[in-house]
Amino acid sequence: MTSVSQKMIDASQRAQKRLAGRDTPFVTNCWYVAGFSWEFSRALRARTILGRPLVLYRTAADRPVALSDRCVHRSYPLSASTLDGDTIVCGYHGLRYDADGQCVEAPALQTCPRGVGVRSYPVREQGPLVWIWMGEAPADEALPIGDWVSDPAWPASQQSYHLPASYIALHENLLDLTHLSFLHANSFGTPDFASAPYEVDLESTPGRFVLTRSVMPTRLPPVWAEPTGLTGRDAARITTSEFLAPSAHVVSARFYGLDVPEQERADTRIMTAHLVTPETAASTHYFIHHARNFAQADPGVTQFMNDQLAVAFTEDVVGLTKVEQMIAATPDGDFYEISLNSDRAGLAMRRWLFQAAHGAAD
Amino acid sequence: MTSVSQKMIDASQRAQKRLAGRDTPFVTNCWYVAGFSWEFSRALRARTILGRPLVLYRTAADRPVALSDRCVHRSYPLSASTLDGDTIVCGYHGLRYDADGQCVEAPALQTCPRGVGVRSYPVREQGPLVWIWMGEAPADEALPIGDWVSDPAWPASQQSYHLPASYIALHENLLDLTHLSFLHANSFGTPDFASAPYEVDLESTPGRFVLTRSVMPTRLPPVWAEPTGLTGRDAARITTSEFLAPSAHVVSARFYGLDVPEQERADTRIMTAHLVTPETAASTHYFIHHARNFAQADPGVTQFMNDQLAVAFTEDVVGLTKVEQMIAATPDGDFYEISLNSDRAGLAMRRWLFQAAHGAAD
Amino acid sequence: MTSVSQKMIDASQRAQKRLAGRDTPFVTNCWYVAGFSWEFSRALRARTILGRPLVLYRTAADRPVALSDRCVHRSYPLSASTLDGDTIVCGYHGLRYDADGQCVEAPALQTCPRGVGVRSYPVREQGPLVWIWMGEAPADEALPIGDWVSDPAWPASQQSYHLPASYIALHENLLDLTHLSFLHANSFGTPDFASAPYEVDLESTPGRFVLTRSVMPTRLPPVWAEPTGLTGRDAARITTSEFLAPSAHVVSARFYGLDVPEQERADTRIMTAHLVTPETAASTHYFIHHARNFAQADPGVTQFMNDQLAVAFTEDVVGLTKVEQMIAATPDGDFYEISLNSDRAGLAMRRWLFQAAHGAAD
Repeated sequence: MTSVSQKMIDASQRAQKRLAGRDTPFVTNCWYVAGFSWEFSRALRARTILGRPLVLYRTAADRPVALSDRCVHRSYPLSASTLDGDTIVCGYHGLRYDADGQCVEAPALQTCPRGVGVRSYPVREQGPLVWIWMGEAPADEALPIGDWVSDPAWPASQQSYHLPASYIALHENLLDLTHLSFLHANSFGTPDFASAPYEVDLESTPGRFVLTRSVMPTRLPPVWAEPTGLTGRDAARITTSEFLAPSAHVVSARFYGLDVPEQERADTRIMTAHLVTPETAASTHYFIHHARNFAQADPGVTQFMNDQLAVAFTEDVVGLTKVEQMIAATPDGDFYEISLNSDRAGLAMRRWLFQAAHGAAD
Repeated sequence: MTSVSQKMIDASQRAQKRLAGRDTPFVTNCWYVAGFSWEFSRALRARTILGRPLVLYRTAADRPVALSDRCVHRSYPLSASTLDGDTIVCGYHGLRYDADGQCVEAPALQTCPRGVGVRSYPVREQGPLVWIWMGEAPADEALPIGDWVSDPAWPASQQSYHLPASYIALHENLLDLTHLSFLHANSFGTPDFASAPYEVDLESTPGRFVLTRSVMPTRLPPVWAEPTGLTGRDAARITTSEFLAPSAHVVSARFYGLDVPEQERADTRIMTAHLVTPETAASTHYFIHHARNFAQADPGVTQFMNDQLAVAFTEDVVGLTKVEQMIAATPDGDFYEISLNSDRAGLAMRRWLFQAAHGAAD
Repeated sequence: MTSVSQKMIDASQRAQKRLAGRDTPFVTNCWYVAGFSWEFSRALRARTILGRPLVLYRTAADRPVALSDRCVHRSYPLSASTLDGDTIVCGYHGLRYDADGQCVEAPALQTCPRGVGVRSYPVREQGPLVWIWMGEAPADEALPIGDWVSDPAWPASQQSYHLPASYIALHENLLDLTHLSFLHANSFGTPDFASAPYEVDLESTPGRFVLTRSVMPTRLPPVWAEPTGLTGRDAARITTSEFLAPSAHVVSARFYGLDVPEQERADTRIMTAHLVTPETAASTHYFIHHARNFAQADPGVTQFMNDQLAVAFTEDVVGLTKVEQMIAATPDGDFYEISLNSDRAGLAMRRWLFQAAHGAAD
């Protein structure tokens, strides 16, 4: 095959039109993770979320605060300024903002102008996570992730990555675990993963897309085999990927030895929250919260799994970066993209994201 | 306060429309400082001014010359070529240009084409400064700065900075000294500066904008207190900022002890020429000439003040760079900018600059 | 001369309109050198040619293969994937492509979709050169360079450079050897080259442009004088530059001592193929194959000439980079470009290239 038909390119472009892509606006009315709890303190921290530069800090009473980082007077970054009590004093001409973003003092004036200030964003804390609401709608939705993230029965570790790629590509990655056999061939993938049977649930709950792969019998990779004592034994590995929101995805997996009678099997599980916060259209803050319901008292297991997973998630970061660079390097209209049956969940997610972004989510 | 009203954004954008900003063309019919006298020699030097790449050198008779840096034949930089007598021989195909920019030899031809050459720019030398005229109008205007820059009664030192920010933001900085209390809190600012009374003169001379701040009683920062012997004494600090041209601003300050009777007060002054040469719309050559009329014979004072000022001017460079980056990072139409009463001089300057750039300066 | 007339600028822009420049599409229906033979092996290699990212490798049977580097599924680079036999297994989700670019396996599916694949490009090997055909027309043209490149009577050496400049500027460089006296003043140029008589043949063969310079008497530079034994003797240096295709240019030169009677003169020649492969509009893969018909058995001569030429060709790379940067830095419409009689061959080439790119080559 030497050539690529214009027909394929046209069909590909038609298909892309209703799918969220790099030009689709962000879904702002949604809770996103702004960072881990310990990242915010009495020091002013700059972070860009959904394309907007923010300054984040904690009040004296330990409440996290998120404000627009750009002073309304001459655009100096508040994150390069001074925290005085719960107020920020701009480092250029000294305008003072309270924790609501209201300007409360302008040193060169007798009286401060009224009704002037930077935008403040609702923030909510949940165990190790600090969430932010970037949209115009009231921030009264529930958080996308359940309180298991702060449940002591689920000991956990956290990781974060800066991903120079689209957050949509990361969600697609998480909804097609075929890639475990290839991108993660040397970490937590196994060859039998790619062809294992899977089920999808794309309709039970609008905006929720679920994929379950059952690999059995299989041999578990060390990250799961060692802590569960299943090394060298035929086992089942049942993995569920759930897209819960533009900001959140949970992967849960259950493992058991096939040599154990059904009624004696332990309910051995891991849960990984993949917290996906767009920085810009082509870069993403990627936060991981990884928990388990076994060996709860053993910090060595926490450390072991964390180290092994860091290798695997770094493979995702490196791989998605290569994809982003390839797309940037290839002229539109010269290439096509096909989707496979294994992309059904990813495509449903991208269709929904497109509609949500354009204000017509079903 | 959570939200930013569209009304504020619209009002801000309307206000910006008649003010010089990053899209406003340069005012070309004006003398700009091309560099300090000792920067130009028999070596060819490249420098971009008002967006145009230039080559600068001195003739055998020591006259500074400024030509377009781009050979008219195949665009090789003349600054990467060879100076032969007072002519430049292009390093690619050997076209030879005289000090007027006229092409006088093309080695591959019997006779040189006539009327071909690179643009030459009028240059004028004034003490430590070499000025250049980039415009189409005759270069017969007076230089913007008086001859005090070469007056031995005013011993001086010089500094230069490359500022990756708009030259307009630098002029605004100089016309609102409120920032001394904040951006320069650790160098030559004092807390009382921001709220000190000020007067402006925006109308006496078209295109000249003057601001005077009187801080008294105050305690002088070391840069002024030590050389004047006013350390630890109540003093007056009277500072005048004058925008003289798109290229030039002079700050002068007088200091005296309040414990000295009026008739016995020395006329102790410093004068700082801030010479502002746009490189591109978002980068600036920033030259400083700093002089005083006291302790004239003491080079230690020159060195001390120069070192202290370098700290302060570096604060300006760093701060304005942050502002430029913030503006580049924040989407138009999502933010607003307000001005305060203390911005009156800066706004008058930006209005005038806008009109001057569009050929309708009054 | 101070000013540059609008009339000159307009005339220059009119002249440029029919000449190939940075906006002219590539001529795709042409053989280009993809690289040297030894650059391609059982390792996957990425290279961008005419703006398209490719992956290149050799089959088990040693046949070179060139495919589009972008997986049709989710755009992962095949060059970052795995070669398995003669097929590439995508490193993301495991799609498998054969050496024709055909997708032959999709691990998540029972059966592979038919008629799907990446574009493959015809490749041809000629001695040390691997050629690629990027166009839509059948790849049945002869290679632009003769088989002397693999003739043992012409021992040779090879070099390659990454040139961050337009390939058109490189062709112009090769068609105006005036620059030897200036850009190469310290390597293989001599002062008498620029004014030596030259002849052009621009019409005998469409798309072939030939320039011959005869410099005699001259003193040869060391690169030619030492291997030919002509050091310190009056000699003839007759150089022919031939543009053969958008991808290929051959410079041949003959040398002899003027103190040798005509019938006794050896036919001492060098031939240099300059193989010019656009990477993007502003960057070029520049391959050199340099051969001679004397001192065939002396590898010291090969090494000596190769080392000397590396200095000269590096001067071209550095010089053309400066030109490219200057053009990028100077606003359109503010500058003009003139051509001289010595540019006749270059201009004819650029006119032809413009027509060839727009499908109307004569």
